[in-house]
Parts: sequence; structure tokens; C-alpha cells
Amino acid sequence: MSQAAFVKEELQNLFCSEKKETRLLELLRQMQPYDLAEIFRDLDVDLQRELITHLSLAHAAEVLEYLEPERTYELLSRMDETVTSLLIKQMSSDMVVDLLLAIHPLQAEKLQRLLPADYRKKIKQLMTYPEDTAGGLMTVDYVSARAYWTGEQTIRHIRKVGYEAEIVSYIYVTDQRGKLFGVASLKEIILADPKTPLSDIAKTDIISVPAETGQEEVASVLSRYGFYAVPVVDRQHRLIGIVTYDDVVEVIQEEATEDIQKIGGSQPLTEPYFKTSIWSLYRKRIVWLFILFVGGAYTATVLESYQSTLDQVVALSFFIPLLIGTGGNTGSQIVTTLIRALGVGEVKFQDLFRVIKKELLTGMFLGMSLGLIGFIRAWIMGVTFDVAYVVALAAMFIVIWSSVVSAALPLILSRLKADPAVVSGPLISTLVDGTGLIIYMTIAKMILEL
Amino acid sequence: MSQAAFVKEELQNLFCSEKKETRLLELLRQMQPYDLAEIFRDLDVDLQRELITHLSLAHAAEVLEYLEPERTYELLSRMDETVTSLLIKQMSSDMVVDLLLAIHPLQAEKLQRLLPADYRKKIKQLMTYPEDTAGGLMTVDYVSARAYWTGEQTIRHIRKVGYEAEIVSYIYVTDQRGKLFGVASLKEIILADPKTPLSDIAKTDIISVPAETGQEEVASVLSRYGFYAVPVVDRQHRLIGIVTYDDVVEVIQEEATEDIQKIGGSQPLTEPYFKTSIWSLYRKRIVWLFILFVGGAYTATVLESYQSTLDQVVALSFFIPLLIGTGGNTGSQIVTTLIRALGVGEVKFQDLFRVIKKELLTGMFLGMSLGLIGFIRAWIMGVTFDVAYVVALAAMFIVIWSSVVSAALPLILSRLKADPAVVSGPLISTLVDGTGLIIYMTIAKMILEL
Repeated sequence: MSQAAFVKEELQNLFCSEKKETRLLELLRQMQPYDLAEIFRDLDVDLQRELITHLSLAHAAEVLEYLEPERTYELLSRMDETVTSLLIKQMSSDMVVDLLLAIHPLQAEKLQRLLPADYRKKIKQLMTYPEDTAGGLMTVDYVSARAYWTGEQTIRHIRKVGYEAEIVSYIYVTDQRGKLFGVASLKEIILADPKTPLSDIAKTDIISVPAETGQEEVASVLSRYGFYAVPVVDRQHRLIGIVTYDDVVEVIQEEATEDIQKIGGSQPLTEPYFKTSIWSLYRKRIVWLFILFVGGAYTATVLESYQSTLDQVVALSFFIPLLIGTGGNTGSQIVTTLIRALGVGEVKFQDLFRVIKKELLTGMFLGMSLGLIGFIRAWIMGVTFDVAYVVALAAMFIVIWSSVVSAALPLILSRLKADPAVVSGPLISTLVDGTGLIIYMTIAKMILEL
Repeated sequence: MSQAAFVKEELQNLFCSEKKETRLLELLRQMQPYDLAEIFRDLDVDLQRELITHLSLAHAAEVLEYLEPERTYELLSRMDETVTSLLIKQMSSDMVVDLLLAIHPLQAEKLQRLLPADYRKKIKQLMTYPEDTAGGLMTVDYVSARAYWTGEQTIRHIRKVGYEAEIVSYIYVTDQRGKLFGVASLKEIILADPKTPLSDIAKTDIISVPAETGQEEVASVLSRYGFYAVPVVDRQHRLIGIVTYDDVVEVIQEEATEDIQKIGGSQPLTEPYFKTSIWSLYRKRIVWLFILFVGGAYTATVLESYQSTLDQVVALSFFIPLLIGTGGNTGSQIVTTLIRALGVGEVKFQDLFRVIKKELLTGMFLGMSLGLIGFIRAWIMGVTFDVAYVVALAAMFIVIWSSVVSAALPLILSRLKADPAVVSGPLISTLVDGTGLIIYMTIAKMILEL
């Protein structure tokens, strides 16, 4: 990235002076849009405008797609209206929709007026789909062709309209009524005899998704089949857009972030970390902290009911944090593994008993190991043999108990159509804390004959 | 998927009888390789072999790519050697490598002997790269062209070699020595004048990755720039392969799974859940459970040292699980958010003080809220005003303390080049358990004047 740093430095001087170094401009034109956008962020808006005019329309539009909507709007609003109109038309339609939804409605209105009537209608239509559905993710910048066209005709068509399309690797083939007929890859069209009609080239067993499909489902279809893009259809099975893989990568990342935050016991943040205000962090976190605090307070009631036991053998209270902590740790390991396995489809509710059996067996071995270690540790601390024995047995049974509860809960929640990620590490810890105490105290009373 | 179910049912009878229904075969030929592979899993190997022979070579090879390596080998080993050889040649080279690495070395040797000498050499070379690097992910089935070729020549070349290439949407342009010169999209070649040389069409500011680049870095490059594929080069900057987007989607999913499992306090599983044996689950989990159990045992020592305090006011011990649980929950919320933010690059070590400040402030508000609730809860339980006051203060300070520790730890670990995901929810809980107890007992001694 030393190249980028060099460009940035040179730029500051360049456009102030009159001589425009062609070498530098050449360099700029060769740079990746993402890298140019990174440089843009550090420049003031006049320099940005100056720069944009030196790039090709396609290149400039791509750079704008990588900028934050507010910056893009600020820049566009300072340019000549004709240029602005051309740039927006060149941008990928899903990006235009994101831009229009992010800025003020009046600003959005103003931008839309610069678009040709038919494109404006398309964009307006796109803006009606919820953000997290196939309709919200899709772009209308694809190439479609009629089933009766020959390969030759299709390539001529691509030559004509290809400039505005986001991808041309797949050509979507429709019938006379606009219904999705099939998909042909550009590779297949080129490899076929030029006179072959598309209806003979295209695959007709096509996977498509309705516009209202959730983004998670779209991501799973696309990654399952290894597609570059998946077509989106309306209720009449008419082709209305495509979702490309780069949007899906973003969705996958977002969903993983949400799952991780939920597993941590917080409501997922809707903005990046530093854009989230302290007040917003507070609200996202206090919900579960409050529920867990109030719910967890029953542990105090449990302990109170064993007051006489604790009074008689104070040493028992020393091991409370260790034992309930171990139950929580075991639970946390299991629920995170299962939530993810449910998320990627490796495990389903029907596997309930298989999962419980597996976790029960694993839990027994883990419990025996930790029980043994617990005995040694307590013994070293100098408590009586009986107390050490109680600690060992309690460690074992708490781990086994926690294993079964943690195996069952996420699967049962998924069956109830609830999000299994609700069973966060903190929730399972809190749940097994109280029951763990009961196990501990019951064993103590039995062994110590209190 | 009713189509798939229908096909599966019909298939069982079909090949046993002599009449081969052309309609069914037509249906099979139109199906997605992924769906066909799903059906294949339920069929016995003779039927699989029969079926394969009815598909086109390209289609059959793709189906094989979706099967588990062991099944693919079993199937291939029962086919005619010529067919096997053709199928392997048609398969994507990265898939062939995965297959050869997964089966027994002797079996792999046998399969390799069926390949033409030059392709065998390429595959042997590919097998030397570690699985989780660019070299391990890449395929050699791309189209490369010389910089001096015209667009027309290039398209003729694609027609000739395109059948074996995995993608032809990008043409990789090299100079005479095989060094990467640039990339031209098929779209650009088609849109350009047929006489233009590739050197004028290709973009030369290309992003490529060295073969030894880690898979996470490759995924991040590809998704950052929204590329369809990224070229892989050797130390002499010679083009040796490409990594395509579908592999990257897999890598992103894998990495998210690993992070989630680590956050849960387990070593990441290397296989899907049901393929992981109980013994393997045990080993992955016992490591951290053991460390946390032995480490967490210091809480017993802490409590022992406050034995006289606990003896005097037994009620104090009732709130131990609640208070340390709350500290752990707060910590778990923060570390999961920060680990993910570090993972996707939203937060860096340089932001340490900004993060601490943000978490400290949020922690103060959360602490005050929970302190208030804690006071009410303890009061309702009927403990003395003083004890309730101690619980409230302890809740507040424990939350604040846990916030600061949890904010600092993941960032410091990332600075030390350690994986911040090591700071799992269970680890941070264990860490703040003991310190939380010290805070609680210190406040108790001060307020209750013990």
C-alpha cells in the first residue's frame, strides 16, 4: 500500500498547481476502486470532485459505491447535474438504493429526479423491499436475453448493454412474458456454435429465490450451490433482479457477528463498534444483564435455604465459585458449538436424542476427570477428606447435568422457532448456577450426614 | 425439493428394470450437481456408477466434487480406468487435491497414475501447499493469455481450452516469462474492438496474493475488493493459480465457526459436529476446562482467607454466585463484541484507550443500574440494610472492574500477536470471579466494620 500513500501525498499538491501530471493520473486510473475510496476518505470534497472528473464513468461510479452514503451524497450534490445523473445511472442499482435509503428523504427525492423515468421507476420499486430480503439485496444490473435468441445475437446484445451491467458472466434467459426460463453462462454461449438458440444452451433447472426470501436463506442457497449470483423472481416467477455473491459475503459476516454478540449475552449491535453510542451499548446490554441478574438472584434463595449446612461446614462455601463456574464453562462450550452447528445446518431438532447421548457420554468423561482434579485440589487446601470427596462428586455431577441441559436447550428452542442463539453463555451459566448449588448441597448433606 | 424426492424414488426401480425412461434421465441431466450429490448419498455404489455414465462428463465431475472424498474414491475405483481418468481431469484441480489428500496415500498414488504427465505434475505441486493457504485453496483451471494477443485471438483460445477451465470470466494475462501482467474480464474483451491487444485491455494494477498467504487474508482481500477470483503468484511473481470466490465463502464460514467455538471456551472442532468422536470432543474441551478449573481454584483460596468475615455474616455467602456471575456476564458481553470487532478489522490495538474509555463509561451506567436492582433484591430477601448496601456497592464495582479488564485484554492479546479469541467467555468469567470476590469482601469489611 505504499503506492496508495504516495498517491495521497502527491494529490494534495497536484490539483492546487496548474500542471496536471499525466503519470499520476495514469496511476490513479489503474488503481482498484476500493483503494481509491480509501484515499478519498482523507481528501476534502473539492479535491474529491476534481479527482472524480479524471476517472472514467465506470471507475468513478465504483469508487462512489465504496464510500459511505453521506459522503457520496455530499460529493454528488456538488457536481454538475448531468454528471451526477450519469454517475448514478452507472452505479450498481442495489448501491443506489442503499444510498437513497441512507440520506434524507428530500435529498433522495432530489437525486431521483435526475434519473430517466424508467430507471427511476425500477429504483422506486427496489426501495420497497425490506433491507434483509432477497429483494433488498438484489441489483437490476444484469443481462437478460430471450430464449429464441442465438448465441451470436446474445453476444451482440451484451456488447450493446454490457457497459451498464454489474456482471455478464451469467445471462438470464426469459420467455416472452418475462418469466425466468433458464441461465446460460457467458462461457457456455461462447463455447457453443454461434447459431445455437439460447433455449438449447441454457440450463432450465434453475434455482431462484422469491423476492421476500430472508437474507440468511439467500446466503445459504448461494453458498450451497457455489453460484456467483442467484436470480430473484416475483410471485408470477418473472425475473426481477439478481443477488451477487459479494452481497452474500457481507450477509454471512453480519450474521456471524450477530450470533457472536448474542452468544456473548448481548443484543446484537446494529452499527460498527465505534459508531455505537454509549447509550446504545447500555441499552443492548442491560436487557440481558437485568434478566440474568434478577433470574440469577434465585441462587441467593437456594443458598439461604441451606444456611444451616453452610453454618456447620463453612469450608463448603469456599468451593461455590469454582463448582458453579465449571458448570457454566461446560455449558458455554456446548451451547456455542450447538448454536453454530444449528446455524450452518449440521444439526437439526430431529437429532435431539443423538446430541443428548453424545453430550452425556462426553460429559461423563469430563466430569470424572474434573472430579478427580477437584479432589486433589481440595485435599491440598487442607480440608477434610469428606469435604474433598463432596467437592469431587459435586464437580462430576454438575458437569454431567450441565451437559444434558446445554445439549437439549438450543435444539428445543430451534424447534419452537426461537433463535437458539438466545441461549448465550451467560444464560446457560445462570441456569446451571442454581441447580449446581442444589446438587452440591444435596451431596454435602448426604456425605457429611448433616 | 419434491423433485429430488421423486427422482430418488423412481431411480431405485428404474435401473433394475431394463427400460430406461428418457424423461427421468432428462430430468437428472437438468438437475444441479449439489442436489444430485444429495441423492447420490442414499444410493448404493452400483447405482451411482450406472447413473454417472448417463451424465455429461462436466456434470458428473461436478457431482463428484460435492461428495465426500471417500465416496468419490469408492465410485471412481469401480469405474473403467479411461472414464476415471477423464472424470478426474474434468474435476476442478483444488477438488482433486482435496480428494488425493483425504484418501490413503497408496490409493492416491493409483489415481494419480491415471493422469497425463503434465497434469500429474501440476497436481503434485498443488499438494505441497498447506491446506489453509492461498496455495492450498487455489485451482489451476483458469485461462491465461499472452499480453500481445488480440481480443479475437483470446476468444478463439477460450473456445479451445475453455471446457476444462473452472471460470473464464477473467482472463489472466502474463508476459513471456509467465509473470502476471494483468487481468482482463471476459466482458471487457467482448466489449472491446476484436483487434485490440490484451495489453491495452487488461488492468495492470492487479491485486495478487503469494502462495503462502493465509486463508483468512485471502478471504479478506477477495471480499474487500468484491473480486470473483484472485490470482496466486510464486516468489518470482509468476502466475501459478487462482482462488475463486466459492472457496472464500467456505473459509469465511469456517473462520466464524472457529471463533464462535473459541469464544465458547473450547478448542475449535476440525470436523462437523456429528463426525467428531466423543473422545475428540473430550480432548478439545478438557484443555480449557482443566486450565479454568485449576486456575479458578484460587477463588477457594480467596474465600478461605475471608473465612472469619463469612463466619460472622453468613448472609454474605448467599450473594456470591449472583455477584461473580454478573461480573462474568458483563465481561462475556464485552469480549465477544471486541473479539469480533478485532476480527473484522473495526477495532485495532491503537484504539486501546478509546475502547477502555467507552467501556468504562458504559460499565459505570450498567453498574449503577445493577447496584440499584441488587439493593432492592437483597432488601426483599430480608437481610439487613447494611448487607443490602454491601451487595449494591459490590455489584456496581464488580461490573465496572470487569468492563475495564474485558476491554483491555482482547486488544492487548491482539497486540502480542496472540489470537484474541483465546479470551473466551469462560476465561474472562474465571478471571473476574476471584477479583470480584476480593472487591465484595473488601467492601463488606469496610461497611460492616468487621
